Amino acid sequence: VTTTAQPNHDAPAEALRVAEPLAPVETAQRRTPAEEARTIVAAGSLATLSTLTRDGGPWGSLVAYATIGEGRPVLLVSTLAEHGRNLHRDPRASLCVAADPAGRDPLDSGRVTLAGVARRPEGDDAARARDAYLAALPASREYAAFGDFSLWVLEIERARWVGGFGRMDSVTAEAYATATPDPTARAAAGAVRHLNDDHADVLLLMAQRLGGHPDATSARARGIDRHGLDLWTATPRGPAPVRLGFTGPVQRPDGLREACVELARRARSG
Amino acid sequence: VTTTAQPNHDAPAEALRVAEPLAPVETAQRRTPAEEARTIVAAGSLATLSTLTRDGGPWGSLVAYATIGEGRPVLLVSTLAEHGRNLHRDPRASLCVAADPAGRDPLDSGRVTLAGVARRPEGDDAARARDAYLAALPASREYAAFGDFSLWVLEIERARWVGGFGRMDSVTAEAYATATPDPTARAAAGAVRHLNDDHADVLLLMAQRLGGHPDATSARARGIDRHGLDLWTATPRGPAPVRLGFTGPVQRPDGLREACVELARRARSG
Repeated sequence: VTTTAQPNHDAPAEALRVAEPLAPVETAQRRTPAEEARTIVAAGSLATLSTLTRDGGPWGSLVAYATIGEGRPVLLVSTLAEHGRNLHRDPRASLCVAADPAGRDPLDSGRVTLAGVARRPEGDDAARARDAYLAALPASREYAAFGDFSLWVLEIERARWVGGFGRMDSVTAEAYATATPDPTARAAAGAVRHLNDDHADVLLLMAQRLGGHPDATSARARGIDRHGLDLWTATPRGPAPVRLGFTGPVQRPDGLREACVELARRARSG
Repeated sequence: VTTTAQPNHDAPAEALRVAEPLAPVETAQRRTPAEEARTIVAAGSLATLSTLTRDGGPWGSLVAYATIGEGRPVLLVSTLAEHGRNLHRDPRASLCVAADPAGRDPLDSGRVTLAGVARRPEGDDAARARDAYLAALPASREYAAFGDFSLWVLEIERARWVGGFGRMDSVTAEAYATATPDPTARAAAGAVRHLNDDHADVLLLMAQRLGGHPDATSARARGIDRHGLDLWTATPRGPAPVRLGFTGPVQRPDGLREACVELARRARSG
């Protein structure tokens, strides 16, 4: 996983040039690709299901989903829908979940594809799947009991995470199953907005003193997660991305504030 | 296309019960399924592309798209991406475009699947495809010139439109190609909000005098398009959907206001 520019594209070099840090910077932990995938899947409720038509062609359709243990997606599918008939014929499927796009280019944001085989859950698994689906999609109570609808669980064989340009990786089924969704994900957009609206001075200090750009003239938060804070900073040498790690991963949904206060303290004393 | 409840589900009847009109109501034109499909595709810019993996499994991934003549989607795809390698191996593809969800159940909103074969455009078509893509996705200028990216045009063989529960239909390639996107689509959400915020009294009059529910006690706009206005109305006999047609299809993006004023005039004099 590269964190800034994508070196694999056959690209004009100047398109990707950013200012290098002038001082050594601690490498900050990031979410693993498996954590990224689990986080996107946990945050979403709509996805595109890809199935196979009768003649083996690819068919995409919009579905709602819930998740049960290990981030496995649960679908409620009608045999009146083409994808329902497709699954009954060939249960191979993939589910593409996109995070809400944030930046000016909608492709520069997170999404994940989970590929595997859809199975009708049985026994306790069926009850768990049904409960999870009804909890996530309350409106589905109106049709979940219809005779043509049935529950499916996608048993994941591999996953592919794309975080935006130059941030992507494949994820094994085991890594996906054992990773933890970021508990702070829901609070992240609000935290970024708050930092930019009310604490631009502190962000600049962070970029100067912790981010390796002592000549930075401004800084904006562009992302935050349980492991750290991402900034874009402007310097006389050009723009630069800055990644600042927290002292440890935030464990609680409301823990970002405390972690940022600690980062600000380090910047002020740094 | 049915406009209210879906009669094909194997459903408890009471789940779908609505109040019938007490007076005869003119049948109001709706967008055809092909017009619905063209309208959703014209409004969007992000979609999920379904392609086939090496072993023939379905693979979904997020893409941005533009359109050229007859609503054909244009993609800019990297061979570094799995979907890019998939298309080079087997050009069968489908593109699933979802409209912004509006109601309480995200599945009760529009989406369309376009299925066909992706082709590398040539000659004038290639120039048109490139211009359309760069116009729709200006940020792509930064990578469109990269050597690993290439343009594809999806040649559509069939389309499937789903408008929400009980509104769905298949669309032939010819019907899709020759239909016109609704020019008022961008203004619709704002118009619905304005009608509900400022003209609840007129909406009630429309439901009572034009919609066949003289005993209606309240009414809310739930949708609007070039052909007419959709209401939900409350009556002592239960809720009811009401569809009111305009005198003719609105031809201009800013024509909804005039059409609603005319509808209000008919309700007041009706």
